[in-house]
Amino acid sequence: MQTYKAPLRDMRFVLHELHADPGSEPLPGLEEITPDVADAILEEAAKFCTERLLPLNASGDAEGCRLENGVVRTPKGFPEAYAAFRAGGWTAMGSDPAYGGQGLPETINKLVEEMICSTNLSFGLYPGLSHGAYKAIAGHASEALKAAYLPKIVDGTWSGTMCLTEAHCGTDLGLLRTRAVPQDDGSYRITGSKIFISAGDHDLTENIVHLVLARLPDAPKGVKGISLFLVPKFLPAPDGTPGARNGVTCSALEHKMGIKASATCQLSFDDAVGWLVGEPHKGMRAMFTMMNSERLSVGIQGLGAGEAAYQGAVAYARERLQGRALSGAKRPDLAADPIIVHPDVRRMLMTIRAYNEGARALGGWVARSLDVMERHPDPAERRRAEDFSALMTPVVKALFTDLGFEAASIGLQVYGGHGFIRDHGMEQYVRDARISMIYEGTNGVQALDLVGRKLPAHAGRLLRGFFHPVLAFLDAALEDDALAPLALPVSKAFGALQLATAHIAQRGLKDPDEAGAVATDYLRLFGLVALGFMWVRAAKVAQAALADGTPERDFYEAKLATARFFIERILPQVAGLLAAIKSGKGAMMALDEAMF
Amino acid sequence: MQTYKAPLRDMRFVLHELHADPGSEPLPGLEEITPDVADAILEEAAKFCTERLLPLNASGDAEGCRLENGVVRTPKGFPEAYAAFRAGGWTAMGSDPAYGGQGLPETINKLVEEMICSTNLSFGLYPGLSHGAYKAIAGHASEALKAAYLPKIVDGTWSGTMCLTEAHCGTDLGLLRTRAVPQDDGSYRITGSKIFISAGDHDLTENIVHLVLARLPDAPKGVKGISLFLVPKFLPAPDGTPGARNGVTCSALEHKMGIKASATCQLSFDDAVGWLVGEPHKGMRAMFTMMNSERLSVGIQGLGAGEAAYQGAVAYARERLQGRALSGAKRPDLAADPIIVHPDVRRMLMTIRAYNEGARALGGWVARSLDVMERHPDPAERRRAEDFSALMTPVVKALFTDLGFEAASIGLQVYGGHGFIRDHGMEQYVRDARISMIYEGTNGVQALDLVGRKLPAHAGRLLRGFFHPVLAFLDAALEDDALAPLALPVSKAFGALQLATAHIAQRGLKDPDEAGAVATDYLRLFGLVALGFMWVRAAKVAQAALADGTPERDFYEAKLATARFFIERILPQVAGLLAAIKSGKGAMMALDEAMF
Repeated sequence: MQTYKAPLRDMRFVLHELHADPGSEPLPGLEEITPDVADAILEEAAKFCTERLLPLNASGDAEGCRLENGVVRTPKGFPEAYAAFRAGGWTAMGSDPAYGGQGLPETINKLVEEMICSTNLSFGLYPGLSHGAYKAIAGHASEALKAAYLPKIVDGTWSGTMCLTEAHCGTDLGLLRTRAVPQDDGSYRITGSKIFISAGDHDLTENIVHLVLARLPDAPKGVKGISLFLVPKFLPAPDGTPGARNGVTCSALEHKMGIKASATCQLSFDDAVGWLVGEPHKGMRAMFTMMNSERLSVGIQGLGAGEAAYQGAVAYARERLQGRALSGAKRPDLAADPIIVHPDVRRMLMTIRAYNEGARALGGWVARSLDVMERHPDPAERRRAEDFSALMTPVVKALFTDLGFEAASIGLQVYGGHGFIRDHGMEQYVRDARISMIYEGTNGVQALDLVGRKLPAHAGRLLRGFFHPVLAFLDAALEDDALAPLALPVSKAFGALQLATAHIAQRGLKDPDEAGAVATDYLRLFGLVALGFMWVRAAKVAQAALADGTPERDFYEAKLATARFFIERILPQVAGLLAAIKSGKGAMMALDEAMF
Repeated sequence: MQTYKAPLRDMRFVLHELHADPGSEPLPGLEEITPDVADAILEEAAKFCTERLLPLNASGDAEGCRLENGVVRTPKGFPEAYAAFRAGGWTAMGSDPAYGGQGLPETINKLVEEMICSTNLSFGLYPGLSHGAYKAIAGHASEALKAAYLPKIVDGTWSGTMCLTEAHCGTDLGLLRTRAVPQDDGSYRITGSKIFISAGDHDLTENIVHLVLARLPDAPKGVKGISLFLVPKFLPAPDGTPGARNGVTCSALEHKMGIKASATCQLSFDDAVGWLVGEPHKGMRAMFTMMNSERLSVGIQGLGAGEAAYQGAVAYARERLQGRALSGAKRPDLAADPIIVHPDVRRMLMTIRAYNEGARALGGWVARSLDVMERHPDPAERRRAEDFSALMTPVVKALFTDLGFEAASIGLQVYGGHGFIRDHGMEQYVRDARISMIYEGTNGVQALDLVGRKLPAHAGRLLRGFFHPVLAFLDAALEDDALAPLALPVSKAFGALQLATAHIAQRGLKDPDEAGAVATDYLRLFGLVALGFMWVRAAKVAQAALADGTPERDFYEAKLATARFFIERILPQVAGLLAAIKSGKGAMMALDEAMF
């Protein structure tokens, strides 16, 4: 049995304490989102996820989706859960009130996403993809298309997809072959095959709006010849309801390692009617504008898996009796001690915990920057926030999903053999979490984005925007006697990050393979330092609360102990990463292809 | 499609070059196992595994085992493949010629096991468990039991199991409840329930011989009250053929993350007839005598998964066209370059390669020590070998399986989305490999064995037996100009291992939680140093071959490049591990149970 209780206390910590900026005005449009309102939303989301989504997680995995007579059936309970999700207004959370959305900030949306991912990642992909489609349309489509489609997507009666990948091209979209032929009425006819389309077909909504990358007849080769089209499953009738069936069909469902309740479709477009979104040949740009938020969401999937794994592991570690504490029996009244007494079990629990809380803190910071970027009245603030989110997006996506998969595997390990069998649901977390390291750009691609695009962008401006405040904070923390023991190792790790950055800037400039060869190690180093920084900041808040005589001593003491665990036991990995980075590409590129 | 070609060249390298001791006499009983004979055996094994086992790997996973009317059916093709395996004499490899065995050395057996694990881990568990039962019987049973059962197990007409785990006890066998009541005829009646019994029932052999841990009526509490019993599925008739059905039934099959073609059974023993193996209450001792070889075998499962993942990943990296090399197009004739040109893809391939070849070398060394321990005429040599294998067993089991799972996951990642779907078989390697970190003692238990038992044993004698020759080799290597650049980082890493060892010896003596808290990090540190040592030794052999003008330049150049990769890119992790170990138990034990 999978268990979950939303970590609301820690979410409030991130939202109201860690990233709070008490002196500042609320962002325009968010004046009504007071802490009380935010908490109420989170509590409602927690209730929905726990009561409606969690019970369908294991059953959805066992049953999977089926393709019947050209129609995809989601597992038992999914249509009803989706109807409730829609009725609860959850599809509208992050959307513009102009289209019926609630206009909630990303800081809240991402916490709700975390809960959804913890309780039912497969389910979460359906509204998740819709929101991606919403953004593409809202950001780039004509007013007519917006008016026709956005209210339906926002209220969840229609859903959306992103159709990028083809069998021969995933990362390298420049190779794609789907064609779009302009028609006299201003529409286009789309023909081609797409694969790996999440939520490509299903029975949750009355219509599905596909956003499809395709080439116009006169398109230049490569990624500069790709356009974006809106292709509905049913063409809207004059009254706005779904009308005639369009030429898009699900030709097959993929059989996957995990997220089995999420329909991953092969879609055939056969002279399907579509409309251009944005400018011709500028489809990739339309994709990229929504990518920061999407990639943060995928990172959050890793965190969601980690949190579910943590809670499952803790529950089992408390109840499973096996052996005695090394330091002597802790529960002599029982046949054996609960395994939570064993240091090595605690190592596993503390590792996941440190990952999760660190990631939640960092994710919250990036989510905040997305809100500032979108809403702040001061263009300089907006630009700073945009720089920061652009820099952190690949870090968060790759780091959180790597750690989330690791956390899920650790959680399984706490169960021993009972984790490998299906009954407790731990192995599902591992299988489900694995995909997030791949989609929305593999984690290797994220590392190349960080090293190849984000570091050199604007002559290092993105990086300086991160380094300077971190450095200032750590320098001040070193002067604080209580905080210095935690700040010092993070400060040293930050020094390693600076050295690694300088190394890459120097070597990578002359030889891009040098940058490529160390990109993944650099991203991990960057991520560990960012988490370390979050942990010192969290510790500072905790120390202040304890000094103020908080009644929640356990919460803040645990925060301090977890900070210490991260900094003492995980952060030291930066030394090895720096050494690996310094060694360069030599050994990696030495083998001829035939020698592998 | 899963692909595999046995890495025979590297196996020969390990067998004849790396661990060769040209001046020495062959071990007694192994005079006829010349290098040519060994190579012929490996080639035949490679042929069998590739032609018979590999084609059943994905289909066996998809089909799984079924429990039908109380009988377990293995997947399509398994009975025929097992019959061919048996007919080929593969069940008899490592067994005593006195019982029809071939008496082959562990150095060869473990390489064959690696091939079996690479091509079909689920299949391999059936004969693997039999061999465990063989050893328990051969080592501890009466002559009558040996005569009745061993020839059948050796020739593969009967198979065996190890029945240890019960629902409430896995690691802590002291809690087990299965009872054995002595009968007047010298037999026993066994009653109880066992879970997670690999090969507990199946349709591959005409009889199954269960080795069951149970308690006698007068048994002391805990692990010192456990006895070992032989309980056949069918009681042998007077003519030795399977006779009356015994009171043991498969009550359920487990549904698992992986190794789905391996029948993992819940077994009910209901007044089943059995015979004592070894002395009353000394069942755990009988278990432990076979454990070094068994745990090495489980470690080899990790290596097997890693090798399969490597080969799959290399094949895809060569054929998948995506993007252009950072340094400019390498195949301008094609629509894109094969992804093997990308440094980050090479990082993944080289990482798996460095793990695999290092593990094969280290595993070969430990296998050799098992042979020496069993066969060497000099008791001092035998004791040294026993010390070494006892020390390395937990390292090999935990390290190889951790790295094997990581390697399988990296292999999947090379495929991107195509790795997450079933079609290429990469995700199966991940699911199958996951179990080896758990069974035969979880990897956390291995770490505690290393730190709590092996380090302090005989006042550190086991450790000195490893440290001294390593130190002597590295010191000499540092004097060798060609080898020194590789030997120096390993020598430093070895220094870190010495520091960590001293730290644990000092702190752990006073407080066992201090040892427990760092055990897993210590095992990893130990393992990385042991692999680093293997890589310097391998590099030395490669340098000598190249200096001698070998015609196999590519093989030895690749060996040198991979040594360099391991030492430059992976070995630096020891710095972080040492720092983590030094930080001790503090942060780990700080939280009260309720605070998790």
